[in-house]
Amino acid sequence: MTATSELDDSFHVFDTTLRDGAQREGINLTVADKLAIARHLDDFGVGFIEGGWPGANPRDTEFFARAQQEIDFRHARLVAFGSTRRAGAKAADDHQVKALLESGAQVITLVAKSHDRHVELALRTTLDENLAMVRDTVSHLVARGRRVFVDCEHFFDGYRANPEYAKAVVRAASEAGADVVILCDTNGGMLPAQIQAVVGTVLADTGARLGIHAQDDTGCAVANTLAAVDAGATHVQCTANGYGERVGNANLFPVVAALELKYGKQVLPEGRLREMTRISHAIAEVVNLTPSTHQPYVGVSAFAHKAGLHASAIKVDPDLYQHIDPELVGNTMRMLVSDMAGRASIELKGKELGIDLGDDRELVGRVVERVKERELAGYTYEAADASFELLLRAEADGAPLTYFDVESWRSIAEDRPDGSHANEATVKLWAKGERIVATAEGNGPVNALDRALRVALEKIYPELAKLDLVDYKVRILEGVYGTQSTTRVLISTSDGTGEWSTVGVAENVIAASWQALEDAYTYGLLRAGVTPAG
Amino acid sequence: MTATSELDDSFHVFDTTLRDGAQREGINLTVADKLAIARHLDDFGVGFIEGGWPGANPRDTEFFARAQQEIDFRHARLVAFGSTRRAGAKAADDHQVKALLESGAQVITLVAKSHDRHVELALRTTLDENLAMVRDTVSHLVARGRRVFVDCEHFFDGYRANPEYAKAVVRAASEAGADVVILCDTNGGMLPAQIQAVVGTVLADTGARLGIHAQDDTGCAVANTLAAVDAGATHVQCTANGYGERVGNANLFPVVAALELKYGKQVLPEGRLREMTRISHAIAEVVNLTPSTHQPYVGVSAFAHKAGLHASAIKVDPDLYQHIDPELVGNTMRMLVSDMAGRASIELKGKELGIDLGDDRELVGRVVERVKERELAGYTYEAADASFELLLRAEADGAPLTYFDVESWRSIAEDRPDGSHANEATVKLWAKGERIVATAEGNGPVNALDRALRVALEKIYPELAKLDLVDYKVRILEGVYGTQSTTRVLISTSDGTGEWSTVGVAENVIAASWQALEDAYTYGLLRAGVTPAG
Repeated sequence: MTATSELDDSFHVFDTTLRDGAQREGINLTVADKLAIARHLDDFGVGFIEGGWPGANPRDTEFFARAQQEIDFRHARLVAFGSTRRAGAKAADDHQVKALLESGAQVITLVAKSHDRHVELALRTTLDENLAMVRDTVSHLVARGRRVFVDCEHFFDGYRANPEYAKAVVRAASEAGADVVILCDTNGGMLPAQIQAVVGTVLADTGARLGIHAQDDTGCAVANTLAAVDAGATHVQCTANGYGERVGNANLFPVVAALELKYGKQVLPEGRLREMTRISHAIAEVVNLTPSTHQPYVGVSAFAHKAGLHASAIKVDPDLYQHIDPELVGNTMRMLVSDMAGRASIELKGKELGIDLGDDRELVGRVVERVKERELAGYTYEAADASFELLLRAEADGAPLTYFDVESWRSIAEDRPDGSHANEATVKLWAKGERIVATAEGNGPVNALDRALRVALEKIYPELAKLDLVDYKVRILEGVYGTQSTTRVLISTSDGTGEWSTVGVAENVIAASWQALEDAYTYGLLRAGVTPAG
Repeated sequence: MTATSELDDSFHVFDTTLRDGAQREGINLTVADKLAIARHLDDFGVGFIEGGWPGANPRDTEFFARAQQEIDFRHARLVAFGSTRRAGAKAADDHQVKALLESGAQVITLVAKSHDRHVELALRTTLDENLAMVRDTVSHLVARGRRVFVDCEHFFDGYRANPEYAKAVVRAASEAGADVVILCDTNGGMLPAQIQAVVGTVLADTGARLGIHAQDDTGCAVANTLAAVDAGATHVQCTANGYGERVGNANLFPVVAALELKYGKQVLPEGRLREMTRISHAIAEVVNLTPSTHQPYVGVSAFAHKAGLHASAIKVDPDLYQHIDPELVGNTMRMLVSDMAGRASIELKGKELGIDLGDDRELVGRVVERVKERELAGYTYEAADASFELLLRAEADGAPLTYFDVESWRSIAEDRPDGSHANEATVKLWAKGERIVATAEGNGPVNALDRALRVALEKIYPELAKLDLVDYKVRILEGVYGTQSTTRVLISTSDGTGEWSTVGVAENVIAASWQALEDAYTYGLLRAGVTPAG
């Protein structure tokens, strides 16, 4: 482990995705997931990665052991999270405190109660004993060479109820040797003006170095974090993509982007902000949540323009319509194809695809009509560039691009008395004048169809061997429905050098998947420069 | 149309879901959708509903005609959106201005340029002509009895570039008779402190009544809206669920909740805030977007608790861990079942289901183990209460609840040479000692299986006739994948009096759907009080 090489210690970007972020409903991290996320966070350049609670959870204990062996941290220090010692005991005798030391982490965050009611009701001890617990645990760890941060849980509610006691906890931690005392809005109920006032007062009254940990229950966690910085906090606790319990935590990405791009304050090593979009999506992949399309800065929609009004002005100057250059955060501007957008967007989109439609008003009109008609039926071209390009070319050429003509297909899924499943598909098609019938098995009906199509076409189009389906999304359309509804399938395909998306819509998932597959292969052959021959 | 009956005019909750919100990527509203959303917004109690741009878009023209005929607004006034007149013409001769008058809307929002560079580059006119356009269009509409609001586009960037000109636009609008001048952070790049400073200065310098329109590109739109209110703005423009271009607009729900619950300011008619969760979800249904699970106040996760640590403390006092009583916004607290949560959560969840596990530590341990094992395989019980209850009962009773034993099933999907699709399913099962074989057709493979299962069971269990599948969700698990991946299906079923969710996980969508269907029917029979007989 090395220190945050290029940055001094005056400001901390502290990530708690692996500890507090993992509390989000739907997230369930394995040790391998945690290691993968830690690598991404270190790559992004955060100063501290809180890895979990060693001793309280065997997975976290294993994570600390493996992270220190397997990861060569370039930027981040690993932090273990734990609690102050139990009431009425000594820190030196506390198993949980011992586990923190044994984790090997050189930095430790201790959570402490700072709300008088929580001390009495949840901790069931006296206010004085709670202060002793803070002092004893901090000094015990500091004496053993650890750097200690103290999270004051429910600080802002506690401050409202009993400001003197809340500040006494901050002083106890700071005087016992904690480097930073973090004021936590644990239930997330605060607004920026309140955060700013309390942080300012506590800083003035205690002189402790302060940090902020905000939850997003009012939808203001990013602003609350920045309000604390405005008031003098120099340590921000966040999670990737804002993952966390209930609504979530302060989102690391907009906090860091605001500090770097709006405050002009360097908080990451040089050049790392440009990796933000990629890292946000990579972490979403690991936790197995679809990246939020409308996440600030990093969402695929974050710099996407739809309105016809804007689209025409963007031709003049893109900076009129975006608050930052998307490249600064590794994102890109996109023009959306949609029936609202009209001609200007279709023209811009054509240009993006290298097809100049500028002069042919009648063609643009036909494309607009066709997009309208298909979007009404459930297609979406915003997320399926390749299908849109095929549509555009079909209108421009007067006929769809055809490498093969499908006569029919059939898919059989079976659950046998022994509990095993079988999936078989048959495809009948014509290609280069030849009629081909192919059958294949797969681990599901779409997979079986995909394989049968490859078997049918592989001799005629060996280029297809390079194609991989890399993503497959199913969306049921209509508001309230049973299994009788329209299905939209989006497929992403890669040929190793690029990726493209295609869409299919039908009354059932298999027929919709088939359409998206046909487009995916047709587009793949087009990319490979194969001459059409239906 | 009637006015905001119980509230005076001193503060405006202005919704622009139907106009600016509709710019969100993936949203495509029909006139019927717009009417449905307008009803929900009126039901929620907003003061103003901006319905669209009549004249610019035939759908919006139709919406205004039908909304005024078909909707009896209880709280809201309908607002038409349009632009100031073209340069070098008269407002009286402007077609677009005429369309605003013809829409019948008594309130009109005019968008005006207030950033000098936009006037020159996008509008291509002089700064003086732009001021004349504002004055002329506002006074023309005011003279015809309309109430006029003016949206100053790109105000904050404009103010930074040329504060005197930006303020001149505000003065021109206000002096010509606009009731409110709205300062728009059109590209969403501002932070709360900046908003607060500018709104305060403009208010002091112009004396105009000010509103705020914030976009969420920095993740601060809610906070920016509140910052403007802190500085004296008395009109907030928001969209339901924060829908809007790029990242989105200021989310109506957390803005209103903050004003009512944190500021103690009544901005909705009495009792409407309690409908917020329902209305948020209903609008998501209409626009056909899955409601965000982690949306502040109204998300299903907004008051969901997962951590074992919290779960045990919540038994002591729920108010220790939530910033407001969820009932105030129509939401509820939930305990999540998850392998992180441990025993305390399983016990609480058992209690929620009316099954007291308190005394049987060994049983709770078995359930925790089983949940862990299944969640590892891809099941999620957080979203499938009925499947969890069946699992709990199976562990408590020593055997799963069984109404029928499936021997095998088969599903055939076919695309015929004529382009038509056929789906057929066969189910073989035992129920009450009888072997039943049933075949049915459907419009998709899962629908065909669902029908075959009903045909097989309907004589033995007539209770099943009441059941409807009301939602069906497919999720592909694993990070990067083709069609060879694990599939999770969640099904919601209703019997007219209640709804329940079940989960299935398998290597393909049909097998996963089948599992969820089996659980759905088993749970339905349990609810109907039918005695198990496998």
